[in-house]
Amino acid sequence: MGTDDRHIWVEHLGVDECWRLLAAAPVGRVGVIVDSGPEIYPVNHAVDGRAIVFRTDAGSKLAGIERTPAVCYQVDGVDTAAETGWSVLVKGRATELVDTEDLRRAAALRLRLWSIGVKEHWVRIDPAEVTGRRIWRSATAEHAD
Amino acid sequence: MGTDDRHIWVEHLGVDECWRLLAAAPVGRVGVIVDSGPEIYPVNHAVDGRAIVFRTDAGSKLAGIERTPAVCYQVDGVDTAAETGWSVLVKGRATELVDTEDLRRAAALRLRLWSIGVKEHWVRIDPAEVTGRRIWRSATAEHAD
Repeated sequence: MGTDDRHIWVEHLGVDECWRLLAAAPVGRVGVIVDSGPEIYPVNHAVDGRAIVFRTDAGSKLAGIERTPAVCYQVDGVDTAAETGWSVLVKGRATELVDTEDLRRAAALRLRLWSIGVKEHWVRIDPAEVTGRRIWRSATAEHAD
Repeated sequence: MGTDDRHIWVEHLGVDECWRLLAAAPVGRVGVIVDSGPEIYPVNHAVDGRAIVFRTDAGSKLAGIERTPAVCYQVDGVDTAAETGWSVLVKGRATELVDTEDLRRAAALRLRLWSIGVKEHWVRIDPAEVTGRRIWRSATAEHAD
């Protein structure tokens, strides 16, 4: 039962590689606590230095962030055919941007929205911890030791 | 600034469609609370009736679930070229399976693991709420009203 570990290995990604993957991903998932439970919502984001910026409408996501600023942000890439993938997780603190200069800076970011709504609130996640891993798989038994 | 809403619309998915998408997805993301903050981890899952089942090793994910059984589970599909996608979110309660009959039933599920590790702990998420949405986009201005 289970997976043949001889042909699979996990690479722990360095912080620079994590930020490269974050910057390249047009979509990620913000994890917030709402009513004492976690919720996950896909959003479009931009990377500003070593912070994540996204836009949102007023709603449970923003209310949750105001109540519990501890959030996470996750991006991944999955190859269903190869049964491999990678995932990057940012744990940090979310702040709604209200300062004029912060908003001007955010508006200059290349942040393309896919969905509808005004999404007039800008949120920045300042990271406390960034981790990532990638699963590799050899096509044949040659990798087995 | 912003998105041209005339060519984009959001469909709220019915519960049956949400479960169809959950059952078809080989990978999803479990949201757990660890040390008072949310974390998101991709896992392989199976659908058993109207519950989600996944396997995990002992670790922060399992410890978090034991401390805070309120979890969520999310699957999505993203079309980067078309800038569209869908997302399904299950909010519920996680329980580690310990009963022999529960474990026998879980082991009979078609749950293929991509990653390494024994992952000897089985967790079931019983849903309290299942919601989903899909973003549609017309290629031309014809949809505009």
